[in-house]
Amino acid sequence: MSWSFSIGSISGIRIRIHLTFALFFIWIGAAFWNEGGMAAMANGLAYILLLFLCVVLHEFGHILTARRFGSQTLDVVLLPIGGVARMKCIPEKPGQELAVALAGPGVNLVIAAVLFILLGSQTIMQDVAQPAKNVSLLSQLAVANIALAVFNLVPAFPMDGGRALRACLSYRMDRAAATKLATRIGHILAFGFGLFGFVSGYPLLMLVALFVFMGASAENNSTQLHQLARRLRVSDAMITQFSTLPVTSRIADAVALLIHSTQHDIPIVDGVGKPIGLLTRARLLRALHDLGADGQVADVMRTDVPTVSDRAELEDALRLMDEENFPAVMVADQRGHLIGMVTLENLDQMLLLARLQPRE
Amino acid sequence: MSWSFSIGSISGIRIRIHLTFALFFIWIGAAFWNEGGMAAMANGLAYILLLFLCVVLHEFGHILTARRFGSQTLDVVLLPIGGVARMKCIPEKPGQELAVALAGPGVNLVIAAVLFILLGSQTIMQDVAQPAKNVSLLSQLAVANIALAVFNLVPAFPMDGGRALRACLSYRMDRAAATKLATRIGHILAFGFGLFGFVSGYPLLMLVALFVFMGASAENNSTQLHQLARRLRVSDAMITQFSTLPVTSRIADAVALLIHSTQHDIPIVDGVGKPIGLLTRARLLRALHDLGADGQVADVMRTDVPTVSDRAELEDALRLMDEENFPAVMVADQRGHLIGMVTLENLDQMLLLARLQPRE
Repeated sequence: MSWSFSIGSISGIRIRIHLTFALFFIWIGAAFWNEGGMAAMANGLAYILLLFLCVVLHEFGHILTARRFGSQTLDVVLLPIGGVARMKCIPEKPGQELAVALAGPGVNLVIAAVLFILLGSQTIMQDVAQPAKNVSLLSQLAVANIALAVFNLVPAFPMDGGRALRACLSYRMDRAAATKLATRIGHILAFGFGLFGFVSGYPLLMLVALFVFMGASAENNSTQLHQLARRLRVSDAMITQFSTLPVTSRIADAVALLIHSTQHDIPIVDGVGKPIGLLTRARLLRALHDLGADGQVADVMRTDVPTVSDRAELEDALRLMDEENFPAVMVADQRGHLIGMVTLENLDQMLLLARLQPRE
Repeated sequence: MSWSFSIGSISGIRIRIHLTFALFFIWIGAAFWNEGGMAAMANGLAYILLLFLCVVLHEFGHILTARRFGSQTLDVVLLPIGGVARMKCIPEKPGQELAVALAGPGVNLVIAAVLFILLGSQTIMQDVAQPAKNVSLLSQLAVANIALAVFNLVPAFPMDGGRALRACLSYRMDRAAATKLATRIGHILAFGFGLFGFVSGYPLLMLVALFVFMGASAENNSTQLHQLARRLRVSDAMITQFSTLPVTSRIADAVALLIHSTQHDIPIVDGVGKPIGLLTRARLLRALHDLGADGQVADVMRTDVPTVSDRAELEDALRLMDEENFPAVMVADQRGHLIGMVTLENLDQMLLLARLQPRE
């Protein structure tokens, strides 16, 4: 189940709205309605829409800059706490990463500058001093864009300012070390956000804190994993102790295997042991519900999961899983027989082990 | 690492304070200090201490009632959102469960009644109408105890009112079905708490909502699992596809097994295949850090993990794991040779599969 739905696309990049953002939108509408009826609600929603248009433009600041450096973008998701562009292979050169990170807040500053010129800075300054409901929409928007730029530049990785910080640190140390340091700073700032949000009663700030905290950990993990994978081959990391099922098996056979083993993904093989599909636990559970125990695994297995050589570089396998969202890759020997599996869960575990054993 | 520390024991039951509660206490102290200096802080902290004494008495209401029905209590943990008594084999008879659930709020009502008699209800009523800082400590406490009783009686499983609800439902349906229904009601109420806390800016209520939501799910899961386990033997649920290591192995061997398999717990066996210990992943990680790859598994394995017969009832194995906090049990045949393992993770998965396949 996906928590976001598409609302269209701009130059090939899909814009998606997260369910929580839709609820947030309704909530804001209701709050304005409560305060001043229909007119206030229309005004309030128009403001929020314009604000999120600015957020989308901010994301496109990142996206178009990244595209210049050869990076593709999958989509943009709008959350109540901002927008997130999911990119494929974010540029890793410090200068390029810095440009991509700063392009987003840069867009907001440009929008604010244009509004300041159009409205005149005096008008805006006078507006800001008035109670909120007398202020013109565009004045509010100008101020909000400055706030957006400033807030995003807080050096809390993985926010824009934190990415810029990592890029700057990368000039002086390797990328993994720079990410680790930026992550630590991000964690401290997130903790500060959370505490401030809690004490002052800003639940949204607490959400941002959680998002920053978990985001920093996830990105740090991913960076360290790629760093580790660069030095290894698939055979160093693959699971070799696992069971397979023949393609003629029933769902019941897969259920028995799931119960009596510790495996979550079951490779499906043909008569001579060549891989032809992968039955993930999620698929198996759905199939059990939909087809019952007598269904055929051949009807529900994923057939798009790639097979790689055991002598391939681990980094390449990891990249495949990351970018194409594969839960695992299967590993075959030169004759095409299945000899292993690489899963994200096991790679994470390997990273944990590698961290504890620095002298290897 | 444990997040709570002991502050003493009453009639053999250890009282523990959770770290977050200690932080909460400091925060409250600082807030009172800010508001009215030293005197306000002393007064505020005295109030909080008395209030949490009432919370402890509330828990002992549950504990002493449960003890009459033969149930043991492990300890009481104080959290910022209240106290939790961890009991061994909570009575399952509806009448007994109802009595245990109501005894806690009952204690608060008794405390309130005693204070009303001591102070006179008129004094308390007059006090309540005044601004908070003029109200006597004991008046505040009387009102707080009523609030505690009422709040705990909200029928949001696993709060006291929710437990009472389950007990009442258990008169009319089986315990698993009653738990399921109580859990659903608990989830809905928790969602309501959370939304209200978010909209009105009460972060503590959002924490309570999270606690109720996750608590309801966890207890429901546990109840359904026990229900399922009653119909099965250990052999129906045990993992049979796993690897073992000889007791002479090094940490490095265990690390290799962890990387190249999907197993998290490694049984350690003697020369003829009889189980003598279990190396859990947590222990292995700690050992790798402390001893390095050359350490011996024999020095770090758990030797207290029990071995059961494959023909034992699954319910008995589950009870062992639950009550003694074993991560797994090992399974041996009649000659004492290791033939399987039962882990909580796999049992949870079995429950998931059983739910999807009601016609089995």
